[in-house]
Amino acid sequence: MSVQMQLRRIIISEIQDEQVIMLKEVEGERIFPMMIGIFEASSIDRRVKHMVSPRPLTHDLIASTIEKLGGELRDILINEIRDQTYFAVIRIALDGEIVEVDCRPSDGIALAVASGVPIYVAEGVLEEVCGND
Amino acid sequence: MSVQMQLRRIIISEIQDEQVIMLKEVEGERIFPMMIGIFEASSIDRRVKHMVSPRPLTHDLIASTIEKLGGELRDILINEIRDQTYFAVIRIALDGEIVEVDCRPSDGIALAVASGVPIYVAEGVLEEVCGND
Repeated sequence: MSVQMQLRRIIISEIQDEQVIMLKEVEGERIFPMMIGIFEASSIDRRVKHMVSPRPLTHDLIASTIEKLGGELRDILINEIRDQTYFAVIRIALDGEIVEVDCRPSDGIALAVASGVPIYVAEGVLEEVCGND
Repeated sequence: MSVQMQLRRIIISEIQDEQVIMLKEVEGERIFPMMIGIFEASSIDRRVKHMVSPRPLTHDLIASTIEKLGGELRDILINEIRDQTYFAVIRIALDGEIVEVDCRPSDGIALAVASGVPIYVAEGVLEEVCGND
């Protein structure tokens, strides 16, 4: 089972390499914090602030590549935590099937925010990080 | 017409935002310099140095997305310069046709280096920047 999350907060610190992003349950109160790199944090932040770029940024390129190849981005799922590292997949509908592509959660979230698709976290991962609902 | 280039040099400066990448003609002597962001420069540099990452980095994600959707990345082409800004496309074979996806040259080069496909620059762009062969 997976739980839909929304982007709650991005904390960008110019004096640290790792930035903090917080996801919150859409239908609940659990907060899921994640450390991500400055590039991904900036990419998400630009998007949230509706800043536009004259040329497609990296996560726009992923979105347009999916579209040009006939796929439809459905959502992203943070599906595993192993040795304190999160893993995720992007899920794409293609010819009536769902294709999953492994990614880092930060890329997945940046892509989801760029494309306006939902972000999910597997219930097991959420419990491990935040406890039970 | 387009001219095949190879990555000649990456100059990373920690005190400047913009980094320099130099492409050189495979069958000629013209050098094509480009300013790119630190993220793309680092991504290319990591790749050239064969540094491995436990999780797919952003340009690996583009490569695996193309593959999972049944496409085959062929090459990248820097095809235009407008107001001192370069534009590029990635070219993907899909079902016997070539699909082009707009990108920034830095993303295109990072993807080409990650995937081991050729980099081309349109002859017109090369002439504008470097003069005639």
